[in-house]
Amino acid sequence: MNTQIVHVNLGPRSYNIEIGSGNLGEAARLCQADQDGAHAIIITDANVDSLYTEPVAETLAEHGCEVGIMVVEAGESSKSSDVADELWETMLEDGADRKSVVVALGGGVVGDLAGFVAATFARGLPFVQIPTTLLAQVDSSVGGKVGINLPGAKNMVGAFWQPRAVLIDVDVLGTLPDREYRAGLAEVVKYGVIQDADFFAYLETNIEPINRRDAAVLAKIVQRCCRLKADVVEQDEREETGLRAILNYGHTFGHAFETATGYEQLLHGEGVAIGMMCAARLAQRMRRVDAAFTARQRDLLEAFDLPVAVPDVSHDDLLDLMYHDKKVDRGKLRFVLPTRLGQVEVVAGVSTNDILAAMDEEG
Amino acid sequence: MNTQIVHVNLGPRSYNIEIGSGNLGEAARLCQADQDGAHAIIITDANVDSLYTEPVAETLAEHGCEVGIMVVEAGESSKSSDVADELWETMLEDGADRKSVVVALGGGVVGDLAGFVAATFARGLPFVQIPTTLLAQVDSSVGGKVGINLPGAKNMVGAFWQPRAVLIDVDVLGTLPDREYRAGLAEVVKYGVIQDADFFAYLETNIEPINRRDAAVLAKIVQRCCRLKADVVEQDEREETGLRAILNYGHTFGHAFETATGYEQLLHGEGVAIGMMCAARLAQRMRRVDAAFTARQRDLLEAFDLPVAVPDVSHDDLLDLMYHDKKVDRGKLRFVLPTRLGQVEVVAGVSTNDILAAMDEEG
Repeated sequence: MNTQIVHVNLGPRSYNIEIGSGNLGEAARLCQADQDGAHAIIITDANVDSLYTEPVAETLAEHGCEVGIMVVEAGESSKSSDVADELWETMLEDGADRKSVVVALGGGVVGDLAGFVAATFARGLPFVQIPTTLLAQVDSSVGGKVGINLPGAKNMVGAFWQPRAVLIDVDVLGTLPDREYRAGLAEVVKYGVIQDADFFAYLETNIEPINRRDAAVLAKIVQRCCRLKADVVEQDEREETGLRAILNYGHTFGHAFETATGYEQLLHGEGVAIGMMCAARLAQRMRRVDAAFTARQRDLLEAFDLPVAVPDVSHDDLLDLMYHDKKVDRGKLRFVLPTRLGQVEVVAGVSTNDILAAMDEEG
Repeated sequence: MNTQIVHVNLGPRSYNIEIGSGNLGEAARLCQADQDGAHAIIITDANVDSLYTEPVAETLAEHGCEVGIMVVEAGESSKSSDVADELWETMLEDGADRKSVVVALGGGVVGDLAGFVAATFARGLPFVQIPTTLLAQVDSSVGGKVGINLPGAKNMVGAFWQPRAVLIDVDVLGTLPDREYRAGLAEVVKYGVIQDADFFAYLETNIEPINRRDAAVLAKIVQRCCRLKADVVEQDEREETGLRAILNYGHTFGHAFETATGYEQLLHGEGVAIGMMCAARLAQRMRRVDAAFTARQRDLLEAFDLPVAVPDVSHDDLLDLMYHDKKVDRGKLRFVLPTRLGQVEVVAGVSTNDILAAMDEEG
């Protein structure tokens, strides 16, 4: 399979996303490991470390690069100021300087954390993303959002810090637990709904190869999602024009579900899948889409074995959580709602009644 | 006295520095306090709080702005990840969002800390600097460097984050302790040496009004220093071309003196004053300037009652510290050395012998 390139055009901060199969060895070139005095710091988590640190570290070392490896605990709890602080101090001890490259090897947690550390150490180091989950490959590794959580507030501290390059090897998805793989597919479906009806149809006709993680199909899917996300990020790098908000389709509901269930019951993608169903029902209630749209979205999510049922939590509590999301601009709750397959709008002034009704299965 | 404006031209990140006397009330306009839902967070230290928080907070509140006040301990120890973490959490509790403005009211420590918190909270909030020390007015409030310290490494974590505006009231210098005021003058002299011989001569002919802190003379001095620093920052915003390094004249020696004396014996400006003398003697040894240059610089520093004698620490230890400064690119120590009054160059390959000799009074 040939490597596919998605170029993210952000002027002086432009970079390439390279997507292939068995291409982890390209890390050396992307980290400029051959340069005199090259130094790379691989930040990864305990799960990924045992699988993929060795091949990446070896290829860097073979090209003459000095390599440091920092392993954090797997899971969202590593996206904390305490862990960032530990990484900063370890990097200092390891002699990291302005020419060191940070390599984020892992899923979204590692990418966000390592990216934040890269953005802030010595006022900013170059970093290379090597996302190892489907979610990170199609979403969090593109666009430069990095950050850590505060107690009770995800991603509250961070930066916009673009990577120097993103290296995606779809082969690594082979070791991903089933549930995590499927959670990533929720974001894949999202791109079809919000930006690309043809891509949605492609997914519908490729359910079987997707479910068995066919490398060629995966590379195509990842490439398309990265391109779609890059199209948005290129027009609204710092979330200023409002366009980037469309990527949050399903997320207002989804975040509330994740929070209400203590981030333990649902994976992010699962929350988004259920949130997309609520958003679709909300749009249907508001006569923006018809029942066929909602059914088609549900069928595809279910074909990927994704949950679509709202968790068993008081809907009033969920509503309350939505109003306290950090994206809510001083009390004005907005929803990303479909107008047709492949197109969404940001809608304000939705009635509380409609929001509550959309969380009922019957919509 | 009329307000003087220094425009810092950084494309989309351009901003004005407004310099005046008794102009703290302008904070309301610069923070856009009149805007619907305006919210400002004043970050200050315990010393400045008792003097200047009230007038600033009042003018903001009078214009309808909601105001939060966060007071940290005075001193370098507040530039820590722990304090940053506390500020992030307090801001979250106070309902800060992407439209909140951070106001850094204080000296360099407050500006660096509050700027870092502003740069990272919600991936970046606008911030307004109101520097209250001479050092901060002529140096740290210009140029967008923000950050915190790691144990044993100053400014190791941070960002380039430009303020929306800088508001300078030279009247606040009236309450500055004598030693701190004089330490700020070291950086003022520095600008004359590195960039502007006429300005150096102006200082020489205005020693008396400077020493009694004449407001009109101070406004002129601060305006000139901000313009000179802005000229450098506009050409090398992110310290990439090397030009910005000229601002570190005297700092390689100075940092070593500060570190060797545990940051207790010397104020930053005092370390810089002594460092400038070492740099001048080093340049003289290398036949870049003559003895008259060194004497003229010494006379001006002494006229401002600044220390010029190297602290009583092993020179070998000092040399060692210089080689471990974070600005030292993989072992290559560089010095900013004068070629004539108003011009400096960055020089590599200086012999250890010459460095050691420059630390002897006789040079």
